Amino acid sequence: MNFYELIRRRESVRDYDPNKTIDDTVLNRILNAGRLAPSASNMQPWIFLLVSSKEKLEKVRACYKKSWFQQAPHILIIIGDTTKSWIRSYDGYNSIETDLTIAMDHIILAAEYENIGTCWVEAYDLKILSDAISLKENEVVFSITPLGYQNKGYQKLGKKKRKPLEEIIKII
Amino acid sequence: MNFYELIRRRESVRDYDPNKTIDDTVLNRILNAGRLAPSASNMQPWIFLLVSSKEKLEKVRACYKKSWFQQAPHILIIIGDTTKSWIRSYDGYNSIETDLTIAMDHIILAAEYENIGTCWVEAYDLKILSDAISLKENEVVFSITPLGYQNKGYQKLGKKKRKPLEEIIKII
Repeated sequence: MNFYELIRRRESVRDYDPNKTIDDTVLNRILNAGRLAPSASNMQPWIFLLVSSKEKLEKVRACYKKSWFQQAPHILIIIGDTTKSWIRSYDGYNSIETDLTIAMDHIILAAEYENIGTCWVEAYDLKILSDAISLKENEVVFSITPLGYQNKGYQKLGKKKRKPLEEIIKII
Repeated sequence: MNFYELIRRRESVRDYDPNKTIDDTVLNRILNAGRLAPSASNMQPWIFLLVSSKEKLEKVRACYKKSWFQQAPHILIIIGDTTKSWIRSYDGYNSIETDLTIAMDHIILAAEYENIGTCWVEAYDLKILSDAISLKENEVVFSITPLGYQNKGYQKLGKKKRKPLEEIIKII
């Protein structure tokens, strides 16, 4: 599967088999894709927090009430440390959100490559999530994703609704 | 080339052939990879600004003085419109930086797939960049990249300096 097929195939999965966990070998390959991601000044200011235990899953799931989110056997949270990320000298811009997003994109595309479903989730209650994972003051989260196999019979849409290229490209 | 090979191979290119521009067909495939990127609530709050003319390149290049950046025949800037991106109801978080970063990551990986060099650049002078492209008040930029073929004889490093997986994974 080439890169263009991969990104065409990836879409949000909202139906997970709760009983089918992911093998460590496969999980490692997926997380390693995040590890290899670039970050500003190569600071790698991240922790990949994989939530897999029944007890912790219960706590984390409370941050986002959708029923399909409750089914996923794993939830991945990328935690950033704002004291370890790069800061632009001109204006103090901190690269943390961009850094974490690149790593998450690598992970989500790697999961697709492994036939594992994901869904970019940002609509969580950050207060509930922070409490569930005991986020420290200097730590931040910008997106999380379930990781799991699709339920039998679940069909992807197989097409994307996107603006046409002419509408979003400007050449100067 | 599979996805894992692609991300292992991608690295910042800092030596471009100034005379070898990229064909429109190839550019379209690369930019289309950004078009297909997911964004919060599918808002697609972006413009892909491709700088290719001599006059505009000169203005934009002033935002980042490195000599290799002056050589690249194209510079891609993803512009976000903060009034068009998704906002989280709980706390007012605006997804714009995450949205733009996913699109840029897709574009950079697609370029690698096409054997075209890129480099995530965030260390620009935002004031100079904003003036060069007449950025409006509601518009933002978080990263830009040169797009171009490597100069003959340029060798990639071929290895990445990254923290070991054990150091960045936490399983709970």
